[in-house]
Amino acid sequence: MSVKAYGAHAGDQPLEPIDITRRQPGAHDVQIDIAFCGVCHSDLHQVRGEWAGTRYPCVPGHEIVGRVSAVGAHVKNFQAGDLVGIGCIVDSCKECPDCGDGLENYCDNMIGTYNSPTPDAPGHTLGGYSEQIVVHERYVLRVRHPEEQLAAVAPLLCAGITTYSPLRHWNAGPGKKVGIVGIGGLGHMGIKLARAMGAHVVAFTTSENKRKDAEALGAHEVVVSKDADAMAAHAKSLDLIVNTVAAPHDLDALLQLLKRDGTMVLVGAPATPHPSPNVFNLIMKRREIAGSMIGGIPETQEMLDFCAEHGIVADIEMIRMEEINTAYERMLKGDVKYRFVIDSATLAA
Amino acid sequence: MSVKAYGAHAGDQPLEPIDITRRQPGAHDVQIDIAFCGVCHSDLHQVRGEWAGTRYPCVPGHEIVGRVSAVGAHVKNFQAGDLVGIGCIVDSCKECPDCGDGLENYCDNMIGTYNSPTPDAPGHTLGGYSEQIVVHERYVLRVRHPEEQLAAVAPLLCAGITTYSPLRHWNAGPGKKVGIVGIGGLGHMGIKLARAMGAHVVAFTTSENKRKDAEALGAHEVVVSKDADAMAAHAKSLDLIVNTVAAPHDLDALLQLLKRDGTMVLVGAPATPHPSPNVFNLIMKRREIAGSMIGGIPETQEMLDFCAEHGIVADIEMIRMEEINTAYERMLKGDVKYRFVIDSATLAA
Repeated sequence: MSVKAYGAHAGDQPLEPIDITRRQPGAHDVQIDIAFCGVCHSDLHQVRGEWAGTRYPCVPGHEIVGRVSAVGAHVKNFQAGDLVGIGCIVDSCKECPDCGDGLENYCDNMIGTYNSPTPDAPGHTLGGYSEQIVVHERYVLRVRHPEEQLAAVAPLLCAGITTYSPLRHWNAGPGKKVGIVGIGGLGHMGIKLARAMGAHVVAFTTSENKRKDAEALGAHEVVVSKDADAMAAHAKSLDLIVNTVAAPHDLDALLQLLKRDGTMVLVGAPATPHPSPNVFNLIMKRREIAGSMIGGIPETQEMLDFCAEHGIVADIEMIRMEEINTAYERMLKGDVKYRFVIDSATLAA
Repeated sequence: MSVKAYGAHAGDQPLEPIDITRRQPGAHDVQIDIAFCGVCHSDLHQVRGEWAGTRYPCVPGHEIVGRVSAVGAHVKNFQAGDLVGIGCIVDSCKECPDCGDGLENYCDNMIGTYNSPTPDAPGHTLGGYSEQIVVHERYVLRVRHPEEQLAAVAPLLCAGITTYSPLRHWNAGPGKKVGIVGIGGLGHMGIKLARAMGAHVVAFTTSENKRKDAEALGAHEVVVSKDADAMAAHAKSLDLIVNTVAAPHDLDALLQLLKRDGTMVLVGAPATPHPSPNVFNLIMKRREIAGSMIGGIPETQEMLDFCAEHGIVADIEMIRMEEINTAYERMLKGDVKYRFVIDSATLAA
């Protein structure tokens, strides 16, 4: 099946209309008519070749929501018409301990929604900037939000699960003081989720301008990280920090805010290294620096259900498909509150 | 009471005989005649002023064993003649959550065995390079090893607990594959302890010369960390790494050996930073870098009892007190297997 998509033929070229082929649904496949697709920073880095190994043509997009249009013969849990989502993962080995634990995101052979090898043409996966996608049922998520919220559900599939997973893994909840560093696509979800989990939420931003927004998103307290006194007021008090900032920055100033046995989880990877953290800040209070990458499929479903139950969606700005190149430029300037979402119907135009 | 000791009057001077004063035992104090004192790298750094804030005269030593010579009126658990030990901690606030949890080592007001403020003369604590010490009963450990092992018990009070605590906290034991990096004073204890806990132990060293020693200490496998193939053979396989190396080194090569959710615990702090670790190595497998500092008093007692039960002591080379300056030079060259211990009787000579 030939479907319309948007992609780039090289790292230095803009995204443009492109026709791609989707496989016919196999016995365990779900075919989805894409309604909306969120725009993640990863899309930009990958399509522009800023990360190693981009395969062209590159069609980004891994925050996909839509409606099932066909299912394979063995698919029992989905049927045509269902509202569903696809996140960052469309396949994995299904046999390793990580897959066995429902942590397909850590499988060594995890197949990303774009830019991963596949037997399908053209030999690598093509993402959600397209009209349709076909995915093995294991990687299809059910969306239980009301349909009118569907566009704002899309970013949950990456920005949502990327913050939800570390918050759950490191036990954010009542009685815990949780810091969210960076108020962007990931951070704005982190604030909403940590608040809904019952934690006391402190948002950290470099910009005084974001104070009101952070409060509106659910932060109990907002700290402008350049303000040394404001930072010192939280010294040794946080149980957990989810740090969404990918730009290199001073980790020590944040580590000092953790109480004994506290953890700072990095969910963004900088292109050049952070200044090396001071080991004394780890040793003196048995603190940890950890990393976390998206989340597994069962946890992604749990996150979607949690969000549906708590009425949580992303704050979005809808764009038409042809506006994607402009959207990338605005995203680089931080000029989006807080996630662009593509109206996939505009692909047909 | 005036007692003989060995210390330095300035960072650029050698250690020499010095007379110091110990307080009369208060109601909760235990007075100890010191039999042996281990020689820790920290002693050297502190007395030479290589760490900030050394107070002079400086009398180092925090791996102390000896016999109780007097107790205060309210002391119930110790009596004259008991074999006891003093480690790195001689006081703390006793009221904070850390003290409440028996983790006095993380108390903000922990008083070190030397170089910490005290009401006693000369206003800072003086350590175990001395004939006698007086310590609040809370910080006195019982030694259950046979008396003939007493000298080799001394290093357990710092090198032992510093490795025991992270091994226990991060659940070393049967079914776990544990790496010990660096085979020196700390590392040789780490190998013995991890082995006795039932873990599969892999020792990492930069020196092929240490292979036989590491095996004799209990390592199931020994990897020379310069051998890329040998390192690669352990990729993604370790549950825990206890890294005892304080010199700046490449953490990424070790992080890549951790399996998903694995932790590398740093127990040494370099004078200049390690090369900044690659965040991708944390994110891709939800790995952690943590720090750990000695251990609390209850855990130190648990460690001593564990060692007595399993017949574990340090490998030591006994020295006379006046040999300390030479011993420091040899220690800097790694020329000790694996811990110098001072025969405190030589102070009286």
